[in-house]
Amino acid sequence: MCRFVSYIGKDPLLIGDLLIRPENSLIKQSKNATKDQYKLNADGFGVAWYDHAVSNKPAIFKSIKPAWNDNNLIHLSNIVKSKCFIAHIRASTIGDVAERNCHPFLYKEYTMVHNGNIDNFNDIRRLLYVQLSDEFFLSIKGNTDSECLFFLIMEYVHAGSGMSLAAATRKAFKWIIEAQKAQGKDDYSRLNIVISNGDEIISTRFVTKGNKAFSLSYSIENDNSLVISSEPLDDHFAEWSDVPVNHYIRAEKDLKNIEINSLEDILG
Amino acid sequence: MCRFVSYIGKDPLLIGDLLIRPENSLIKQSKNATKDQYKLNADGFGVAWYDHAVSNKPAIFKSIKPAWNDNNLIHLSNIVKSKCFIAHIRASTIGDVAERNCHPFLYKEYTMVHNGNIDNFNDIRRLLYVQLSDEFFLSIKGNTDSECLFFLIMEYVHAGSGMSLAAATRKAFKWIIEAQKAQGKDDYSRLNIVISNGDEIISTRFVTKGNKAFSLSYSIENDNSLVISSEPLDDHFAEWSDVPVNHYIRAEKDLKNIEINSLEDILG
Amino acid sequence: MCRFVSYIGKDPLLIGDLLIRPENSLIKQSKNATKDQYKLNADGFGVAWYDHAVSNKPAIFKSIKPAWNDNNLIHLSNIVKSKCFIAHIRASTIGDVAERNCHPFLYKEYTMVHNGNIDNFNDIRRLLYVQLSDEFFLSIKGNTDSECLFFLIMEYVHAGSGMSLAAATRKAFKWIIEAQKAQGKDDYSRLNIVISNGDEIISTRFVTKGNKAFSLSYSIENDNSLVISSEPLDDHFAEWSDVPVNHYIRAEKDLKNIEINSLEDILG
Amino acid sequence: MCRFVSYIGKDPLLIGDLLIRPENSLIKQSKNATKDQYKLNADGFGVAWYDHAVSNKPAIFKSIKPAWNDNNLIHLSNIVKSKCFIAHIRASTIGDVAERNCHPFLYKEYTMVHNGNIDNFNDIRRLLYVQLSDEFFLSIKGNTDSECLFFLIMEYVHAGSGMSLAAATRKAFKWIIEAQKAQGKDDYSRLNIVISNGDEIISTRFVTKGNKAFSLSYSIENDNSLVISSEPLDDHFAEWSDVPVNHYIRAEKDLKNIEINSLEDILG
Repeated sequence: MCRFVSYIGKDPLLIGDLLIRPENSLIKQSKNATKDQYKLNADGFGVAWYDHAVSNKPAIFKSIKPAWNDNNLIHLSNIVKSKCFIAHIRASTIGDVAERNCHPFLYKEYTMVHNGNIDNFNDIRRLLYVQLSDEFFLSIKGNTDSECLFFLIMEYVHAGSGMSLAAATRKAFKWIIEAQKAQGKDDYSRLNIVISNGDEIISTRFVTKGNKAFSLSYSIENDNSLVISSEPLDDHFAEWSDVPVNHYIRAEKDLKNIEINSLEDILG
Repeated sequence: MCRFVSYIGKDPLLIGDLLIRPENSLIKQSKNATKDQYKLNADGFGVAWYDHAVSNKPAIFKSIKPAWNDNNLIHLSNIVKSKCFIAHIRASTIGDVAERNCHPFLYKEYTMVHNGNIDNFNDIRRLLYVQLSDEFFLSIKGNTDSECLFFLIMEYVHAGSGMSLAAATRKAFKWIIEAQKAQGKDDYSRLNIVISNGDEIISTRFVTKGNKAFSLSYSIENDNSLVISSEPLDDHFAEWSDVPVNHYIRAEKDLKNIEINSLEDILG
Repeated sequence: MCRFVSYIGKDPLLIGDLLIRPENSLIKQSKNATKDQYKLNADGFGVAWYDHAVSNKPAIFKSIKPAWNDNNLIHLSNIVKSKCFIAHIRASTIGDVAERNCHPFLYKEYTMVHNGNIDNFNDIRRLLYVQLSDEFFLSIKGNTDSECLFFLIMEYVHAGSGMSLAAATRKAFKWIIEAQKAQGKDDYSRLNIVISNGDEIISTRFVTKGNKAFSLSYSIENDNSLVISSEPLDDHFAEWSDVPVNHYIRAEKDLKNIEINSLEDILG
Repeated sequence: MCRFVSYIGKDPLLIGDLLIRPENSLIKQSKNATKDQYKLNADGFGVAWYDHAVSNKPAIFKSIKPAWNDNNLIHLSNIVKSKCFIAHIRASTIGDVAERNCHPFLYKEYTMVHNGNIDNFNDIRRLLYVQLSDEFFLSIKGNTDSECLFFLIMEYVHAGSGMSLAAATRKAFKWIIEAQKAQGKDDYSRLNIVISNGDEIISTRFVTKGNKAFSLSYSIENDNSLVISSEPLDDHFAEWSDVPVNHYIRAEKDLKNIEINSLEDILG
C-alpha cells in the first residue's frame, strides 16, 4: 500500500519537516511501514507544492527512484517551504513503475494522491473513459486506477456550471461504487485520497462494506495548520486523531473551518 | 522524426554491427541525421531481439537516455547476436518521453516500431479503442499513436480465425485512413513501420496522398540477410535500395522470398 | 562545450525566466547553440539555488536526462524564485555521463559550474589530489576535471585562516597552469566558471595563451541584478556585454560594486 | 549487505534460472533476505555475462532501479544464456547510489562483485591509490571501496610478468589487512567477492579476526556446473554447501578441478 502526507497552513512549512525529519517521516515509512504494512514502498514517489505568490498551479517533482535514495528530493525538501503541499510514496498495485504512474496527478491547479485501489478496475475502465469529455480522457498519461479516478473528479468539477471539490469527489466515488456493483462481482474499493487546488484540501478515508479501511490520521496545531497523513508521523505533533472510516476531512487555507463529514450515504 | 533499423538473416548478426559500427549507424544517426532531418533523436530508444533457441518471444531493452550515452546499450550491442532484431531511436511527436512510449512495442512474440505519425490522432483515439477487444485495449501502457496502431494490428492478427501479419497491417492502415477521412479535416498519416514475430518481418513505407513519404531503404546480402533501415547505413553493405512509396517489403527467416508489394489500394 | 547561466539580484527571480522563457534560453541553447557551437548539450544538467530565509546552503537539482525533456526541471523552473541561482547544461568532455558528473558541484554553501576543460587533466590528477586535505579529497564523487578544480578552490578557501573566493580561484587557476606547464606538453586550459556562496558570485573567462576563449556575457539591470551567461540570452535584457578574455566579473548580493578584474598575471 | 550469484558451467544457463526462477532467487532476495539480513537491497544491481563465441570481454548491464522493477533486467534474464555470469544486488554502505557504484566492475575481460566492506576505507584510500599505476588509478569511476579493491587486484594481475588471479586476490587482501592494521584502529574487513575472466572464477569468504563472516554457498551439479551464491537459492539444486570461513573456491570452465583453498595465512 502507498503512503502520503499533506500540509495546509497559514505559515509555510519546510517540506522536509514532514518528509525527512519526523521519527516516522514519510521517507522513513517508505522503508519501514508500521501500520497496514503490505510491502515496501519503493516504486516511485512524488511531491506537489503550491506557492500562490508565484502561480496558482503547483509544481510537481516525481521520480521512480526509491525516495530515500533521491538526492534531488532531499535537497528540495530541505529548502522549499510551502503553505500547501502533498507528498506520496508508491507501492505499485495497478500500473507499472513509471514516472507517469507516480502520484500526485496534476490538472491545472488541482492535484491528487491515492492510497488504496479499485478492485478489478479494468472491468470498468472503458465505462469510466466514456464518462470523460475529451479534455480529460486525453489527459490520461499512465495506466493506474488512481489517475482515472482523478480525472473523473476533474470531469465533475469542470462540467456544466461546475461543482465543489467535495461534491465532485463524492459523485466520482459513487460512480465507481455503482459501476463496480453493476459488474456483479463483489469488487471492493479503498479510496483514501488527498485532493487540493491549493486553496482547500480534502482527504477521504473510504472503503466499501465488509472491507478493512486503510488508516488516515490528522493533526491540527493551534488552528494554524492541518497535517493529514496515511499514518501518524510521530509524537512531534501534539496530537494525532483518526479520520473515521467513510468520512472525509476538509479545510481551507485560512484554517477557519475544519470539517469532518460522512461519506456513508455513498455506500447506499 | 524517428529512426529505425532491423535485421533478419540466416546467420546471427551482432547487434552492434548495425547500431554502432557503420559510418552512419543508428546511434550516429541519432545525433546527426542526414535525410529527412527533423530534429534530434534523443527521446529514448529501444531494441528487440529474438533467440528462437531460447524463446519465441523477443527480449526488449528500452531506455529514455540518449542512445549514445547508454553504456548498457553499448555493452549489449557488442555481445548479443541475433537472427532477427529491430532497433528504434525516438524523436517524440505524440506522447511524452517515457520508457513506455519508447518503441519497440511488444505483444507475445510480436514487436513493432514506427517512424512517422498519425495526424491529429487524438481525434480518432476513442474510435480506435472501440475496435480493440479487452485483451488489447488493456495492454496499452503509454499514450502514443504508434502503440495504438500496434495493438490494432494485433487485434486483427488474433481476431476470429486469425489473419496474416501483412493482411492485418493492411487492414489497420485502412482503418486509420478511413477514420481520419471521417473527421473531414484532411489529416495525413505517415506509417513507416517494421513489424515482426521473429519468423517473418514486414516493413512499410506509407503516406497519405499529397504528403512526402519518409525514406525507407533495404539491403540484401547474398540471399542470406535483409537489412531494413530508415536510411542507408553506409557503403558497408554492397547496395541499398529504396522501398517504393506506398509499398511494403516482406521476408521470412529463410530469406527465400523477399516480396515488395503495393499498399496503394488502401488509399482508395 | 557546456552552457551555463547565473543570476544574483536584490529581488528573487523565477528560475524559468532565464532557463525557459528567453528566445535563447539555457534550455533552448541545449538543443541549438549559436556561439562556439561544439556539440549537443544533452549529457545532463543541474541547477543550484539559494534561499537564505531557509538555509545558507543551496538546493541542487541534477539529472542526466536532456534538459528539454525533464518535467521536474520545467515544474521547478516555473515556481521557484531565488535571489541567487546557477544552472548548467553539460556536453561531456572528461568524465562519463552520470548524475555525479553533472554541475553544479556543492560543498557546504559553495557551488560551482564550469564550461571548458583542462587539457590532459589525467596527467595532473594525482598531483592535484596531493594538494587536497582529506576533507576535500574524500568529497570527490565523480571523475571530471571540473569537480577537482572546485575542490582545489575549496581547499584554498578553507585552508589556514581562509582566503577570499577570488583569491582562492586565482590560486587554483595558477596551480593548474603551473602543473600543466611542468608536464612540458603545451597543454591548454579553458576555465570559464561561476562560483558562489550565495552572498557573492564570481565568474571567470580564462584561457591559456594562444587558445580561443569561450564566450562569457553579462547583463546588469538597474543596479538591481546581474545575469552572467555563457552566451547572451536574448534581447529581453537591455544590454549584454562581454567579459574580456582572462578577466573575471564579481558581485555581491547588494549589487553595489560589480568589479571586472584581470587574470592576466596568472599566465605569467 | 549486498547479494550476489554467479555461474560457470559447460553448458550455457539462462540468466533468469538463477536471477528470477528459484524460490529464493537473487531478485526475490533483494526484497526479502533470509540470512545475514541487514537491509533492503534496492540500491542498484548489475549483471556481467560472457559469450566467448563473440568476445572475450563480458557485457555488463547495470541500473540503479530496484531489480524487481526493471523490465530490461527481466527481459534480458529471460533470453540470455551464458556459460559464465555474475549478478549483484546492492545495499549501499560506502559510495552513493549511482550506476558507476553498482557492481560488477569491469576491466578488459575481468569482472568482480563484492559483498561486505572495508571498515574506514577512507583512511587507506590514498595509500591504495599510490599502489596503482596510472592505468588502474585512472580507471576508477566511482567512490566505493569495492571498486578500489578490484583495481588493486587488477594491478597485481597485470604488473610485471603477471600474477594468477588467485595470487593477485590474495596479495590484494593482504595489502588491505596490513594497511588497516597500520592505522592502529582495529578496523575490520569483510571480503566476500566473485572475480572472473570468463575462463576461471574465484569466490572468497573472508573476514578479519573476531568478526562474523557473511555467508557464501555453492552447488555443483554433475561436474557440469558450479553456482556460487551469497546464500542458497533454494532446493532446486541438489545440494548446497558452505564455503568455509576464510577460504575461497576456484573453478575453471571445464569444471575439472574445483578447489577450496585457505586464506587463513593472510590474517597473519
